[in-house]
Amino acid sequence: MTSAGRSYLDWNATAPMRAEVIEAVARAMLLTGNPSSIHAEGRAARGAIEQAREEVGALVRAPGRMVVFTSGGSEANAFALTPSLTLGDKVPTTRLLMSATEHACVREGHRFPKEAVGIIPVSAAGVVDIDALRDALAAMPQGERALVSVHFANNETGVIQPVAEIGLICRQAGALLHVDAVQAAGKVDIDMTTLGADVLTLSAHKLGGPKGVGAVVFGSGRIEVRERLIRGGGQEKGARAGTENVAGIVGLGVAAAAARAELAAEGLHQSALRDRLERDLLALAPGTILFGSAAARLPNTSCFATPQVKAEYALIFLDLAGVSASSGSACSSGKVRASHVLAAMGVPADLAAGALRVSLGRGTTAADIDAFLAAYTRVLMALTDRKAEAAA
Amino acid sequence: MTSAGRSYLDWNATAPMRAEVIEAVARAMLLTGNPSSIHAEGRAARGAIEQAREEVGALVRAPGRMVVFTSGGSEANAFALTPSLTLGDKVPTTRLLMSATEHACVREGHRFPKEAVGIIPVSAAGVVDIDALRDALAAMPQGERALVSVHFANNETGVIQPVAEIGLICRQAGALLHVDAVQAAGKVDIDMTTLGADVLTLSAHKLGGPKGVGAVVFGSGRIEVRERLIRGGGQEKGARAGTENVAGIVGLGVAAAAARAELAAEGLHQSALRDRLERDLLALAPGTILFGSAAARLPNTSCFATPQVKAEYALIFLDLAGVSASSGSACSSGKVRASHVLAAMGVPADLAAGALRVSLGRGTTAADIDAFLAAYTRVLMALTDRKAEAAA
Repeated sequence: MTSAGRSYLDWNATAPMRAEVIEAVARAMLLTGNPSSIHAEGRAARGAIEQAREEVGALVRAPGRMVVFTSGGSEANAFALTPSLTLGDKVPTTRLLMSATEHACVREGHRFPKEAVGIIPVSAAGVVDIDALRDALAAMPQGERALVSVHFANNETGVIQPVAEIGLICRQAGALLHVDAVQAAGKVDIDMTTLGADVLTLSAHKLGGPKGVGAVVFGSGRIEVRERLIRGGGQEKGARAGTENVAGIVGLGVAAAAARAELAAEGLHQSALRDRLERDLLALAPGTILFGSAAARLPNTSCFATPQVKAEYALIFLDLAGVSASSGSACSSGKVRASHVLAAMGVPADLAAGALRVSLGRGTTAADIDAFLAAYTRVLMALTDRKAEAAA
Repeated sequence: MTSAGRSYLDWNATAPMRAEVIEAVARAMLLTGNPSSIHAEGRAARGAIEQAREEVGALVRAPGRMVVFTSGGSEANAFALTPSLTLGDKVPTTRLLMSATEHACVREGHRFPKEAVGIIPVSAAGVVDIDALRDALAAMPQGERALVSVHFANNETGVIQPVAEIGLICRQAGALLHVDAVQAAGKVDIDMTTLGADVLTLSAHKLGGPKGVGAVVFGSGRIEVRERLIRGGGQEKGARAGTENVAGIVGLGVAAAAARAELAAEGLHQSALRDRLERDLLALAPGTILFGSAAARLPNTSCFATPQVKAEYALIFLDLAGVSASSGSACSSGKVRASHVLAAMGVPADLAAGALRVSLGRGTTAADIDAFLAAYTRVLMALTDRKAEAAA
């Protein structure tokens, strides 16, 4: 349960901040200095950042020196998705290949020209078509390099991609791999030493940290982004100019450490609740379709639709009943839009229009699941009533 | 005085956060929702952002709807400095003209090609050479448009530019005007209704708000940035993707309101202390040169050098004595570097190597000024001792 008796089941949109993070951020706001200043106040601020850098690295088993802080996942992705991402050699990165279910900010392709972007299809379960990826890589012109961008897990369905396998394929083909781990970091174990990712991106607010902070983690010291997105001061070793968000970065560090400590236990806790939700849901409305359930998924996410239920209507109804859920990506302007993720999985548009995403978190209780089920039962009953009226 | 008996005189590098801002940010961190979510938690977060938008607009007398939030001043400048900044017509923006004393992040020229950037010299007092600006604008090819970028006030010297006059010149020449107000906002009155700026940028942490938040303020609804820097979700009406830094934005709003309320009183308070500092300094070391003092300056900034005093040495000495000052821009990697600002004003390199910046804030007291003067006296005495030893 969250405050005021509401059941917040939209953790993939944003996670409530951890109490220890709020406390750490509040303390860090008392640090006076600019981390670039050489006086005592400046050095204290610098020290706080460097400590957080180690924690963020540790979350994905990377050395702190591989971490560059940004203002969030979207900036991190915009920073990484550039033809100027190279291995420090002369091979040009000329093509961006991404899965069909990437987040909107990856789909933009950022600094790649539109015509240099290729989409790799996914299966009905939402998993990247490995053969199609191999073919696309094999079709690369000699002497040119592709950047492959695949998210670790999807924000709408929770489907986890076979990233290590994709990493191996990329390595064999001489391609670079970007892994958008915004939705996965802090929810499942991520190990940069075996992942094969050249660059990984994550966001603080999805794992109980503050909004407005994120990070890029490089897979090795050879990778570089030649054309930086925000330039000026020499912050972040020149990779990202602008006075550092000291308190926010401290918050990300504390959130990363807490998420790492709780990873296994929370995974079990949340997947048990999620699985129970889905069982009860299928008993309640047997026609309900669970999206992505044939694939490995994040432990906290359920995405489903019951035929004839409209998501927009259901969400408003749930909200009035004190239950917060989502119709998919919340990273937009408050509109309920058709999901490109479900379309890519071959879900018919009329069914996709009813897709709801319920995403759990460390604070979720059995009572929250019950509250959702009770409210959804009333959504279904209202639907039956309307049908009966129409037939009368 | 700041904490632990230290005298913090580096407010232009970053201002200690206001107590009411820390409190407001801490409260806003308890807001659970993603502002893009349509449920109650999402709407509460959205409401907090929109309130802050009005406050930030009010600080520069612009409607809230003209404000776009960013992750800070550097991102705001990187966003604004693009050939895709247009009036919504077909005239291409092909040239960026900036003063010789702009901040490092403006000097990068961002999305303008290097060869499209022109530098307008400044006078010995640090003021933009208006005739040179007119000439550069007159030299623009027919059918093309220039973007002029002039900061409201310089971060190192505090010199205030004749922005309204420059705005008029730009308007007559059909050019656009960007005003980097990062160092001026919250220190002096800024009025977008008379400034003639098409786009203005500011940063929260320079005015007592959190680090990691800034804003772009448009001068009219006609101005648009066609190629956005960070794309994806539809946040900020599509101008800037990424989940909003809700707590940081709330902090900027509160800081803007507080700065606006105290503007006149703080201006008097700080300029009286600054003027006394400079008087006493000249009495103490009559050879001291005050940079930019022939021009209008921010009330809180003093930049000076005493011949033969090396800034690096003086700063370390001051720091050990509990006084935090700067050698100029702190927005770099902790290195003491030659100032391009003083070079542009014609200050000889050996004198510039001794340039110190003392910048005051709302918490500065007469005791802080005394602490600086006492420590600087000892710097000068040590210099005299060394000279005596060398002569012996």
